[in-house]
Amino acid sequence: MSSEQRHALDAMLRQSPLGAITDVHELRRVFADIMSAVPLPPDLRTTAATLGSVPTVEIAVAGVDPRHLVLYFHGGVYAFGSAAGGAELAGQIARRIEASAISVDYRLAPEDPYPAAVEDAVAAYAAVLAQGVAARDIVVAGESAGGGLAIACLVAARDRGLPLPAVAFVMSPWADLTLTGTSMDTKKGIDPQLARAAFVPRAADYVGDHDPAIGAISPIFADLSGLPPLVIQAGSHEVLLDDAVRLAQRAAADDVPVTLDITSGVPHVFQAYHAVLDEGAAALDRAGRLLSAALREGRS
Amino acid sequence: MSSEQRHALDAMLRQSPLGAITDVHELRRVFADIMSAVPLPPDLRTTAATLGSVPTVEIAVAGVDPRHLVLYFHGGVYAFGSAAGGAELAGQIARRIEASAISVDYRLAPEDPYPAAVEDAVAAYAAVLAQGVAARDIVVAGESAGGGLAIACLVAARDRGLPLPAVAFVMSPWADLTLTGTSMDTKKGIDPQLARAAFVPRAADYVGDHDPAIGAISPIFADLSGLPPLVIQAGSHEVLLDDAVRLAQRAAADDVPVTLDITSGVPHVFQAYHAVLDEGAAALDRAGRLLSAALREGRS
Repeated sequence: MSSEQRHALDAMLRQSPLGAITDVHELRRVFADIMSAVPLPPDLRTTAATLGSVPTVEIAVAGVDPRHLVLYFHGGVYAFGSAAGGAELAGQIARRIEASAISVDYRLAPEDPYPAAVEDAVAAYAAVLAQGVAARDIVVAGESAGGGLAIACLVAARDRGLPLPAVAFVMSPWADLTLTGTSMDTKKGIDPQLARAAFVPRAADYVGDHDPAIGAISPIFADLSGLPPLVIQAGSHEVLLDDAVRLAQRAAADDVPVTLDITSGVPHVFQAYHAVLDEGAAALDRAGRLLSAALREGRS
Repeated sequence: MSSEQRHALDAMLRQSPLGAITDVHELRRVFADIMSAVPLPPDLRTTAATLGSVPTVEIAVAGVDPRHLVLYFHGGVYAFGSAAGGAELAGQIARRIEASAISVDYRLAPEDPYPAAVEDAVAAYAAVLAQGVAARDIVVAGESAGGGLAIACLVAARDRGLPLPAVAFVMSPWADLTLTGTSMDTKKGIDPQLARAAFVPRAADYVGDHDPAIGAISPIFADLSGLPPLVIQAGSHEVLLDDAVRLAQRAAADDVPVTLDITSGVPHVFQAYHAVLDEGAAALDRAGRLLSAALREGRS
């Protein structure tokens, strides 16, 4: 692993304007600009599609004969980001586990606050099942807000009596919209990009008139009993570190098998920088091995 | 994985007298009886030895050409257990990572309260280094109290300026002698063997006149900065679950790479039952892969 890579990434992220923007429209514009400059790897093919009424992007990896499916939820504090923007990370997971992927364009706040995103997530999951994909061949995954949404989706699917996927994989999940993690303070300034101020308006927009401490909004407060194994990754340089830790704690308390995998010295969703950060690729490789093992286990 | 295996183990442990015995001499007698009935695997060869003034048991695995060394600390609430009793688990780790092992007979309470165990642990580690073993080839490992002691040993070694091992692996660490984990209450009765009452007299004996909340006694309160990667495993059916979770939280907060790996529905140090519990063997296999990766990383 390279400390040069980590320092270069840290310096780059400290230049990023995203963490300082509070206006949602400007956030979306700047993020879209950033994403438009990042080409998809040439071996990923994306296709616009739908699952029921929910828009999606389907992702195929060249040379992979898919035996599994990654259902993916992008990040963006429930306010920005897109299924297309999540395609690259979804594809990175898919290529490691002989899978294709579907990235979900769930509705965003403030236009569509909670429970719109959770409804779209569960509708997409149910539609995949209705198409005949076996639950045991599905990995539900997500990053940041999409990581929290992935867990909320599993809880809602369980409560509806749907068969549950083989395993879930969440990267730097935003799992506490009450913003009470101690790392929100202890990692302030160490996190090169994010701080409490970036989350406060987005949480307010998403939560609306609901209680932010309900499990469907903040899965660290959910009853996670009966969920499939969870693989949770985060970096030690992020204010959301405690969201990952407390999600693992909740899962373990509720008898859910869980792996919490913390990489030191790296920021929020560091896996996204796998091309320039050895730790990112290594974390994706470790996740791939755990997901493959869970998929095999589900078939045995 | 077999739910039959888990249920059989749970029922067996509920018959175990160990958790209900508070007299330390009776504890030692009953534990020695139990251990004497458990033969070592035929491919492990053990030899009594010393490291400096600390008695040890050296463990060689037949057919393994050792390139690495496991320095192992047995469990037993700092009051019972022995280096020989830890030899089997130490050997199970060693066989997975091309290593030999040394299991340490650190001094026990009440005869020798804190800091005797930590002094012996660091003395043993320093003696291994003095023999010319490279720190990057060493895995420090332990179970239960020995897991807490392994972390305390690393902190003490760091503070002495000794080179640190490649990685540490702790199973169900007892890392909080103030007994404040919420699982101490929420897992009461779910843990088939242990409850607060078993820990109270042992903590008092070990802590003596010291503050149980100092990091050298309860590593969840230690500054873990600079420690090598930690691999922490526990079962979801144990009152010490939160010790494992909070140790991972502390490590992540201090920028230490950490993997927390929780297996659901299994008890304290479930890896010890690997011969009759698929989850135990699988957890040792996962740990072996992480330890091997860290040992390779230390050489690159």
